[in-house]
Amino acid sequence: MKEKLYLYDTTLRDGQQTQGVQFSTPEKHQIADALDRLGVDYIEGGWPGANPTDSAFFEEAPETKAVFTAFGMTKRAGRSAANDEVLAAVLNAGTPAVCLVGKTHDFHVTCALGITLEENLENIRESVAHIVAQGREALFDAEHFFDGYRANSEYALEAVKAAYDAGARWVVLCDTNGGAQPNVIADVVRAVIAAGIPGDHLGIHCHNDTEQAVAGSLAAVLAGARQIQGTLNGLGERCGNANLTTLIPTLKLKEPFASQFETGVSDEALEGMLSVSRMLDDILNRVPFRQAPYVGASAFAHKAGLHASAILKDPTTYEHIEPSKVGNARIIPMSNQAGQSNLRKRLTEAGLKIEAGDPVLGQILEDVKARESQGYSYDGAQASFELLARRAMGQCPEFFEVKRYRVTIERRKNKHNQMVSLSEAVVVVKVDGEKKLSVSESMDACGTDRGPVNALAKALAKDLGRYSDLIEDMKLVDFKVRITQGGTEAVTRVIIDSEDGKGRRWSTVGVSANIVDASFEALLDAIVWKLIRDGAKA
Amino acid sequence: MKEKLYLYDTTLRDGQQTQGVQFSTPEKHQIADALDRLGVDYIEGGWPGANPTDSAFFEEAPETKAVFTAFGMTKRAGRSAANDEVLAAVLNAGTPAVCLVGKTHDFHVTCALGITLEENLENIRESVAHIVAQGREALFDAEHFFDGYRANSEYALEAVKAAYDAGARWVVLCDTNGGAQPNVIADVVRAVIAAGIPGDHLGIHCHNDTEQAVAGSLAAVLAGARQIQGTLNGLGERCGNANLTTLIPTLKLKEPFASQFETGVSDEALEGMLSVSRMLDDILNRVPFRQAPYVGASAFAHKAGLHASAILKDPTTYEHIEPSKVGNARIIPMSNQAGQSNLRKRLTEAGLKIEAGDPVLGQILEDVKARESQGYSYDGAQASFELLARRAMGQCPEFFEVKRYRVTIERRKNKHNQMVSLSEAVVVVKVDGEKKLSVSESMDACGTDRGPVNALAKALAKDLGRYSDLIEDMKLVDFKVRITQGGTEAVTRVIIDSEDGKGRRWSTVGVSANIVDASFEALLDAIVWKLIRDGAKA
Repeated sequence: MKEKLYLYDTTLRDGQQTQGVQFSTPEKHQIADALDRLGVDYIEGGWPGANPTDSAFFEEAPETKAVFTAFGMTKRAGRSAANDEVLAAVLNAGTPAVCLVGKTHDFHVTCALGITLEENLENIRESVAHIVAQGREALFDAEHFFDGYRANSEYALEAVKAAYDAGARWVVLCDTNGGAQPNVIADVVRAVIAAGIPGDHLGIHCHNDTEQAVAGSLAAVLAGARQIQGTLNGLGERCGNANLTTLIPTLKLKEPFASQFETGVSDEALEGMLSVSRMLDDILNRVPFRQAPYVGASAFAHKAGLHASAILKDPTTYEHIEPSKVGNARIIPMSNQAGQSNLRKRLTEAGLKIEAGDPVLGQILEDVKARESQGYSYDGAQASFELLARRAMGQCPEFFEVKRYRVTIERRKNKHNQMVSLSEAVVVVKVDGEKKLSVSESMDACGTDRGPVNALAKALAKDLGRYSDLIEDMKLVDFKVRITQGGTEAVTRVIIDSEDGKGRRWSTVGVSANIVDASFEALLDAIVWKLIRDGAKA
Repeated sequence: MKEKLYLYDTTLRDGQQTQGVQFSTPEKHQIADALDRLGVDYIEGGWPGANPTDSAFFEEAPETKAVFTAFGMTKRAGRSAANDEVLAAVLNAGTPAVCLVGKTHDFHVTCALGITLEENLENIRESVAHIVAQGREALFDAEHFFDGYRANSEYALEAVKAAYDAGARWVVLCDTNGGAQPNVIADVVRAVIAAGIPGDHLGIHCHNDTEQAVAGSLAAVLAGARQIQGTLNGLGERCGNANLTTLIPTLKLKEPFASQFETGVSDEALEGMLSVSRMLDDILNRVPFRQAPYVGASAFAHKAGLHASAILKDPTTYEHIEPSKVGNARIIPMSNQAGQSNLRKRLTEAGLKIEAGDPVLGQILEDVKARESQGYSYDGAQASFELLARRAMGQCPEFFEVKRYRVTIERRKNKHNQMVSLSEAVVVVKVDGEKKLSVSESMDACGTDRGPVNALAKALAKDLGRYSDLIEDMKLVDFKVRITQGGTEAVTRVIIDSEDGKGRRWSTVGVSANIVDASFEALLDAIVWKLIRDGAKA
């Protein structure tokens, strides 16, 4: 019989404290829906009354299986809980649960609040009792608990017991400043349990200021706490909160947790972990962190040659879990460190079957090595790698031929004496024996100059004859440039990420001393890859 | 009396296993120098013989206070250590220490290597003894040790004892697949010590696949291990290695470590932690991770209103350490006052003295905020920041005026039927009332097309009248491009590093949807900054 572990998500509240993050009301709905499908037990929606977005979100609160929770703080001194208008705004949101933050560190009571220690205890007791009296589930976030316990353990314990005795369903021990070490967290959790608050009423709330928010949360669980607070992708104030995107797979897949505990997240929901993580990055317009545990694009990338060859014999040799369990996949990137077995595996993934020992494998490795010495990098450009292999195998159709292009970038004063810039690109291609001249400019529909690469991409895609329909849903979604060494000269390496209407995303690379030319090469590869994948015939 | 903890850096070896990372030989030198100044005890330079870059690096090995170490693997079965050419290549690098990875997990011995358990023990023993016999310090990386210990603890212990008994100075327990939990790591370290390898001969090597590489390393230290292996910024295979950029400040500043242990990193070197981290991001052309512990731009950013107001009363209320100890600084987006004192500090660094309370400080902050929302970033572009401040202060001379420019990039077949590209730039400036038209092309002396930004830079610098002599010694040394958000649109941010004959290096920024235009803006700033610094008069 496994014990239940409760997952409490605060992406919409503490996650919004991340520098640069401000969710809109529709985005909050989208995230709450995803969290609910994932199977967390509590969704903290924000602080009703603290800002217009949060208030609007609670006015049209989502219907969730998870316990929808409003956040607020304990009443202020010198008035009753019923007469505190900040607390009233929180209660008026009408959520089934309310989580109140309160002080447990004596220094904060006297320094930050400027009230007496006893007044603070009364604020905690009365606020929690007020919530319970209204028929709601009460949670108490014990702010700075670990620092408070170190400074004055007696008072810190008194404060959390005040909340517990007043009827709080959960007392959550918060490492607000993020500096508590996991071994300390474990010791303190055990002390709190010994002082009379049972572990199944204790939660943990960690921050990542020493990169140990996940470890601190798990140490608290091993010491007896049964609720974990965290955020998707580890969003949050300063260095972020405990990362639920990492914690959930660990709790479900790793020992000693998997056999001891159960969570509300099903195996099937866990397979959606990667897409939930990406959805949040999309909302925030962030580039997903490649090295993120479980869900990062590199999380199951095996670059070392020795690793890659062992993985082919048995994936458990260098993988701690099966990547598909979290919706991820294995990658064996190409680099000058990789060997033939690695290469075959990568070709197979691209749908190219080659027998072991085929001399073309050696040819492809040679080509990769030669191109890498010119400044190319195929680690992050799988689609260009695939085209390189196809060219070596004689399996790269020539759909069209680029005869020439010209790009002009001009900047001058307009008639209103403002500096304006505009680029224009002419591309000449030959498709099915027919020469096609296309011209595009860089101005978008809003009158903004989108630059020469944009003009060139538009001109190139403008008329490719019978292929035009196939590439209509393509768009350029990311563009990276780095100056690198090609032979003895500095050259520019451009990596372009493209996406299409099917949700596919692929990366191509171009290298040249001329940045526009490098971009053009990557754009060209992107189109050719898409045509091959969609089965176009030359 | 504090105990010594040894720091072993593997940025140049395991760090290079990061997907997309490939250091050049000069970059390896730059990183090794920074590590040595930081004060790590060991610098692992790579695997001599494994690839051309590593071999080249060892041929011109850096002189370091740290023990410079070559990495390799134990000899293969069926030959003597002296006759294994892979091992010979490692030893021939002539480093004072050699670290060999070897198998300790029975499954890997039989599955990945396909040899007997006894053959593997012999490989370990003979390889380590061979290194010691050559007068080198030997380290043994016990691959998959924690998985191996779980599967067959007796064999795993036998393997590490074989290395220790053969004379290895350090036996390093590696969590190669990154799945071992900190509590398990602690238990196993204690068991190894109990089995006869003293803690001051034991190292720990963790990976971040469950986001606990730092926690696992610290758990091992608390259990008795005295060497930590890690990388700068947590680079490394898959999700990365234990992050030394986090571990070093934690060991030096946080309890229970600070009072129990000492490392080779001085307090002064620790203040350079942030710049070492940024240097690596620069080399990799990565955007520094804002939420990184200690060194992230957001690590000491206090967004929540309650936090920010308490911080003003006493910074310890919401900070676990003083940010300047790691070279970082507090950010309070809400508080204009804290912003202004930061700003004055930065202006003083640029030689601009402004009295506290001068209203121009508020104006500069407004300008920075407005420009940052357009996509500018002044973190990495101190020279452009200085010009922005000078403009607000009315202290930016207008040396010349750019009237217009035009760049043409063409690619076509030449008479030999080869594709060639060429860019041409025309710049029109007004200097001392005189209009000057300059034209340059992108071809360099070797006939290589250096691209449109090069042509533009040459045309701009070609004739600036009486200023021409002053900028003659300027050259463009680095160029970084990043797609970012400017308002609601994607824009291109270009950062250009320039250098002059006096060895000065400065960075300027330009932003536009048009990459050439963004580059032009940064080029212009670079010239103006140089003219100001060299005392030119408008």
